[in-house]
Amino acid sequence: MFEAAELGRKVTKKEFEAQAPDLRVKMLEMQQALRKCDFPVIVVFAGVDGAGKSEAVNLLNEWMDPRWIVARAYGPPSDEERERPEFWRYWRDLPPKGQFGLFLSAWYTQPLLDNVFGRIGKAKLHDRLERIAGFERTLAAAGALILKFWMHLNKGAQKKRLEKLQKHPFHHWKITKKDWDNWKRYDKFVTAAERIIMRTSTGEAPWHIVEGLDSRYRSLTVLTTIHDAVVAHMDHRNAEAALRQKQRKRKPAAPAVQEAVLGDATILSRLDMTQTVEPEAYRRQLKQLRARLHKLYRKSSEKKLSTVLVFEGWDAAGKGGAIRRMTSALDARDYRVLPFAAPTEEERAQHYLWRFWRQLERAGRFTVFDRSWYGRVLVERVEGFATEQEWRRAYAEINEFEAQLIEHGIVLMKYWVHIDKDEQERRFQSRAETPYKRWKLTDEDWRNREKWDGYEQAVNEMVERTSTLNAPWTLIEGNDKKFARLKVIRELCLRMEKALD
Amino acid sequence: MFEAAELGRKVTKKEFEAQAPDLRVKMLEMQQALRKCDFPVIVVFAGVDGAGKSEAVNLLNEWMDPRWIVARAYGPPSDEERERPEFWRYWRDLPPKGQFGLFLSAWYTQPLLDNVFGRIGKAKLHDRLERIAGFERTLAAAGALILKFWMHLNKGAQKKRLEKLQKHPFHHWKITKKDWDNWKRYDKFVTAAERIIMRTSTGEAPWHIVEGLDSRYRSLTVLTTIHDAVVAHMDHRNAEAALRQKQRKRKPAAPAVQEAVLGDATILSRLDMTQTVEPEAYRRQLKQLRARLHKLYRKSSEKKLSTVLVFEGWDAAGKGGAIRRMTSALDARDYRVLPFAAPTEEERAQHYLWRFWRQLERAGRFTVFDRSWYGRVLVERVEGFATEQEWRRAYAEINEFEAQLIEHGIVLMKYWVHIDKDEQERRFQSRAETPYKRWKLTDEDWRNREKWDGYEQAVNEMVERTSTLNAPWTLIEGNDKKFARLKVIRELCLRMEKALD
Repeated sequence: MFEAAELGRKVTKKEFEAQAPDLRVKMLEMQQALRKCDFPVIVVFAGVDGAGKSEAVNLLNEWMDPRWIVARAYGPPSDEERERPEFWRYWRDLPPKGQFGLFLSAWYTQPLLDNVFGRIGKAKLHDRLERIAGFERTLAAAGALILKFWMHLNKGAQKKRLEKLQKHPFHHWKITKKDWDNWKRYDKFVTAAERIIMRTSTGEAPWHIVEGLDSRYRSLTVLTTIHDAVVAHMDHRNAEAALRQKQRKRKPAAPAVQEAVLGDATILSRLDMTQTVEPEAYRRQLKQLRARLHKLYRKSSEKKLSTVLVFEGWDAAGKGGAIRRMTSALDARDYRVLPFAAPTEEERAQHYLWRFWRQLERAGRFTVFDRSWYGRVLVERVEGFATEQEWRRAYAEINEFEAQLIEHGIVLMKYWVHIDKDEQERRFQSRAETPYKRWKLTDEDWRNREKWDGYEQAVNEMVERTSTLNAPWTLIEGNDKKFARLKVIRELCLRMEKALD
Repeated sequence: MFEAAELGRKVTKKEFEAQAPDLRVKMLEMQQALRKCDFPVIVVFAGVDGAGKSEAVNLLNEWMDPRWIVARAYGPPSDEERERPEFWRYWRDLPPKGQFGLFLSAWYTQPLLDNVFGRIGKAKLHDRLERIAGFERTLAAAGALILKFWMHLNKGAQKKRLEKLQKHPFHHWKITKKDWDNWKRYDKFVTAAERIIMRTSTGEAPWHIVEGLDSRYRSLTVLTTIHDAVVAHMDHRNAEAALRQKQRKRKPAAPAVQEAVLGDATILSRLDMTQTVEPEAYRRQLKQLRARLHKLYRKSSEKKLSTVLVFEGWDAAGKGGAIRRMTSALDARDYRVLPFAAPTEEERAQHYLWRFWRQLERAGRFTVFDRSWYGRVLVERVEGFATEQEWRRAYAEINEFEAQLIEHGIVLMKYWVHIDKDEQERRFQSRAETPYKRWKLTDEDWRNREKWDGYEQAVNEMVERTSTLNAPWTLIEGNDKKFARLKVIRELCLRMEKALD
């Protein structure tokens, strides 16, 4: 795989100095143009030690304007990072739209080292690379330009390079015993690298193998590749946008919902909505369930087990009331209830999942998402804020996100609190009539109600596609609020008991 | 001090149940009204263990809508927290405007414990309380409503309460040996508490001492106090806003700058702007300085010494170029250059210093603020975005902020890069004529230039009032870019050498 990167290509000082000034200006102009674009550029530098990863990052920072560049290298995770899934720290460092993120090895470091040092075999390596490919695919699908450079040196060249660096007045401190230990494992590194590159060189995030022997050749190659890719991506995005514009003009967007598909046998229609509970039994059971949950909460706090709860449901379905009954068994310091409406400016400049990643709490806490990432396949689908392509691929993106939560040991509950259309109308009326509840009812609620069928189809499809073995949906029959509240807590208890077992 | 909180006041169940429903509705209505207001409510609960701190926080979360409440308790700092000044973690948890932040002991915990356990004496305690008072004053001055409750029990009552909690099915786990150890130190706690309350009960952040014996009495007292204080604060802020509106209509705002004050002998006018350096000497010295800085950077990385650099200066003064020459001696992974223009939506919902606190990097890194918190006393002053009161008190707020950086061991450099008015015009012209620099020049630059005198006065006053012994301004004579760049690096080296000594 690396033969083409061992040809000893060089650029003379004269050639370099002839090209450099123009390229610098071009890089700056490209960066300024990028600032107005709606996508970030994510560049990963990995490869053989001494082949010029850091130098490339430094050069980019020097030649472009560092104010719109984030450069990151990663050591061992901090305790705050360890308390979240592995990719949390990469998500929080992602550049906003219009900016560069330069990542040194980053998410490739651990799988590579683990494989080289025999901590994981081929199968496990493959799983880890799947995760990486999923991460990059998710970002690329939303428009991010992802470029990956593998900086290569052959074994002899690496030895020479390490020796040279050891003598360099600026850089000798960078070469430690660890580098020489790694060098001894050169062949293993190359084998692992080949696997990594083969598996993660995808159409949307290809690897560029760069011969690392000559710094001038390397610099020109990396910079020119980045420049051309960014410019091409800008053109591509513009063309796409123009195309969409045109299509929109030609014919009105097809309705996201095909009414005919709605039959009798949807998941929601099979719920027994007549279930109720008597006030007396409610009080007794609520008390018992709260005590049960409280004990589980204490145990989970001790064990640093985190719990994430997602509440979705019709307007006025009683999400808020159910949440409050549930949280009343917890200490306020250990939970947060996060409402999600329109994203903020900083959130709009990022991938749609970013605003949820950033809210993952430290270990042992409860995070309640009052509406969630499922907005992508509910409101954004039905209202046409997301294109069909966007909400369709969101199912896989969401499953992947949740798989990471589960894998990290987080208890994930997803509730759909269901009421029927008549019950909703009764509740809207009641809200309209109760002075201190009136603020809850907006014109939007009435507008949403008109799209009931569209939402119903979206909910059905959501439940079908994102009810996974590890992260199933819990459907709550909510016509009777009391019944719903008990079921919410009971199901949480069951799941926590299983997790703490 | 606590006699009035040992009277054994009680509320019967009947009385409580008579008042509760109305109060609940009033709390909800108040919370909804608050959401539209431009200030946050910060409530601190401290006091004797077992006197109902947590219960009060839980009740607030239960009776109000938890979606607009943040409740926080603090254990030992995480490693990411230890790498920043003590108050960083409180700043990052502050609620945005319109919302509640409920803090359990929080910034009062450590000074109290340190004093009780003899780790700090009266004088040192006093210093810590000064810092707290400054923090609260800063928030209150920007409009935050701060309420602090000291939950009290006498020694006998605390004993009974701890015993009772130990038997409670939900709460027994909360009572540990530590609580009993603390109880044995009751008298010391009370003495320290008296000092704390006396020193930090200020007009803008008063303590309310609450008798903690009876949970119904306590609940009604805390909730009614909060309700009334929020409502009063809303009225007060509205009245203030109306008054300002009126004054604005009556007469145009007085110019922020009194031209007459501008004499010859300003700080800036005393700079020798003729200083230059020859190209040959520049190249040689730049190389030497970069090597010197590189060594210092390596040493500071090893020692986890953080460096914060503030760059302020006229438009086109050459800040960007100076920054790039300086950072070229560093590894891109270890520094960030942060440009500050208009705040984002999330930043506008917070105190003006919040957006700078949030950017403090982990230990050992360089953070370059390209424009900074000094915007408050420069652009916001001159353009009238901040009232005279606001920018005047900002000097003290900024000095206090920087004192915390210095105390934490951070190297803080503040540069004013100066050019004269003619030089600026030459550079504007040159920017207008160079294609790839043209984006840098905006209409705003020309508009700012018209206010040169106003800015000059603001700069002079800024330097006078915020050049402290530990955080002095470094004035850079910038008419010759090369001279300026060398001086920027040289001064940084000098300061780092001192810090690393």
